[in-house]
Amino acid sequence: VFFPKVAVVGVGLIGGSFALALKQAKLCGHVVGVGRGAANLMLAMERGVIDAVEPDAGRAAADADLVYVATPVSHFESVLLSIKPALKAGAIVTDGGSTKRDVVAAARAALGAKIHQFVPAHPIAGAEKSGAGAASAGLFRGKRLVLAPIAENDEKDVQALVALWTAFGARVSRMTPEEHDSVFGAVSHLPHVLAYALVSDIAGRPDAARLFGYAGAGFRDFTRIASSHPEMWRDICIANRDRLLQDIEKFTDELAKIEKMLQAGDAAALEALFSRARSARERWLNGEYEEK
Amino acid sequence: VFFPKVAVVGVGLIGGSFALALKQAKLCGHVVGVGRGAANLMLAMERGVIDAVEPDAGRAAADADLVYVATPVSHFESVLLSIKPALKAGAIVTDGGSTKRDVVAAARAALGAKIHQFVPAHPIAGAEKSGAGAASAGLFRGKRLVLAPIAENDEKDVQALVALWTAFGARVSRMTPEEHDSVFGAVSHLPHVLAYALVSDIAGRPDAARLFGYAGAGFRDFTRIASSHPEMWRDICIANRDRLLQDIEKFTDELAKIEKMLQAGDAAALEALFSRARSARERWLNGEYEEK
Repeated sequence: VFFPKVAVVGVGLIGGSFALALKQAKLCGHVVGVGRGAANLMLAMERGVIDAVEPDAGRAAADADLVYVATPVSHFESVLLSIKPALKAGAIVTDGGSTKRDVVAAARAALGAKIHQFVPAHPIAGAEKSGAGAASAGLFRGKRLVLAPIAENDEKDVQALVALWTAFGARVSRMTPEEHDSVFGAVSHLPHVLAYALVSDIAGRPDAARLFGYAGAGFRDFTRIASSHPEMWRDICIANRDRLLQDIEKFTDELAKIEKMLQAGDAAALEALFSRARSARERWLNGEYEEK
Repeated sequence: VFFPKVAVVGVGLIGGSFALALKQAKLCGHVVGVGRGAANLMLAMERGVIDAVEPDAGRAAADADLVYVATPVSHFESVLLSIKPALKAGAIVTDGGSTKRDVVAAARAALGAKIHQFVPAHPIAGAEKSGAGAASAGLFRGKRLVLAPIAENDEKDVQALVALWTAFGARVSRMTPEEHDSVFGAVSHLPHVLAYALVSDIAGRPDAARLFGYAGAGFRDFTRIASSHPEMWRDICIANRDRLLQDIEKFTDELAKIEKMLQAGDAAALEALFSRARSARERWLNGEYEEK
């Protein structure tokens, strides 16, 4: 696979790292960056993330062989609408969105008859940092990349993306957009909401200053994801809210079990639950839950 | 301050690190270790954490100038009962327990008229590792140490411990046992319960294997504290359950706010909550909430 001309719309952590990884793997020629923040685009130019800046997504996409959309998901429909008229036959459009059902719906609405050119994807490489300054060619190495193709996709386009992401060092999996949103609702969106909720809870208390003053390393790691991009996580949570609400309910049920054990002073049941959780986490860290 | 003879009861991560820090700071002579696990005590001897092993806490304490109790908190009363008869006048007993009201109650019950010799303390240096093998002289450097003295304590004993912990590089604070349990219920015990609850929730689902298979770095950090010692955390949660139940309720109220925003599709309110949480966390990381 080789893409002579690439357009990256949204040159943040993910879009910028995608461009750098393409360049490092020598899978592309010229990379044009499109984005809202002039300072960020200048930084991306300085760092060699992109080769040119183009204010208009449609013009950037005009002769592109590959279009990577890595803006906040709420902007996808308007981005795809602007690139549709100019999009070449044979060009592949793919994305870095953290939710997939809404992205597919936006793409269908925007691309119409060109929907087969859009292959949805999600690199599992979040970080609380953002912007082109945080981009790195190695961001995806050893990380998962989920391809969530739709019925209209051409299998050779899907395979081109498998080859591309494999070249980046990512571990590529495939699932439907629906499966994707269920899985990530539970293991990603739910923990983000819980971390934001805890920090918001503590910050809203009258003795917040004292409480934060004594928070330690456990609190720091637990809440790391509460430093994630609020706009991005707003979009993710809204897009996946049906699944996320189910996940919050399951979590709340589990927490209610612990509350009952505490109320009953049932030390043995608490220890058993904590032990099972610890063992499950150890098995996970040991790779015993890895698929394929 | 110098303690010619020291007894460490419970030579795990905290007890072992206390012994190593004492030695590195040249604040002690001979250190005797007491514990349940023979293999762990042998390892502690081999690593130079302790100089001798004594199976009986009472005999170890007999000529000690300083007794450090770092067993699980549920064992404190029996440990203190065994050391009481032999405890020298002028010797200081202190501890590494993560809760303080229950520790003070156990100490009062066990030590009776010698209660003034017990100065409660809590080093904020948890780690999911445990055992003498994980002990290190630098564990407390830059970390907080909370002294939670009681009315009966002699101020010169409290000051001796301030000097000792300051020599270890810890940042020493003072609060009452009640204040201690309120503060750590919110910033430590609550996040531990939430992390255990999330892992337990996911592990109990029919598709647990697939879910763990896609869990990433955010999940790993969020749940790091769910790898903490189940017996220790059982004791902490039971000992502080009145405060912890209040904290769970406050957290659940905050989570319910987010649920309502999701149900209403209120993207602006969600983003505002996430932004406030992120800013509060950034201020915390920048040290803006530090007391003194």
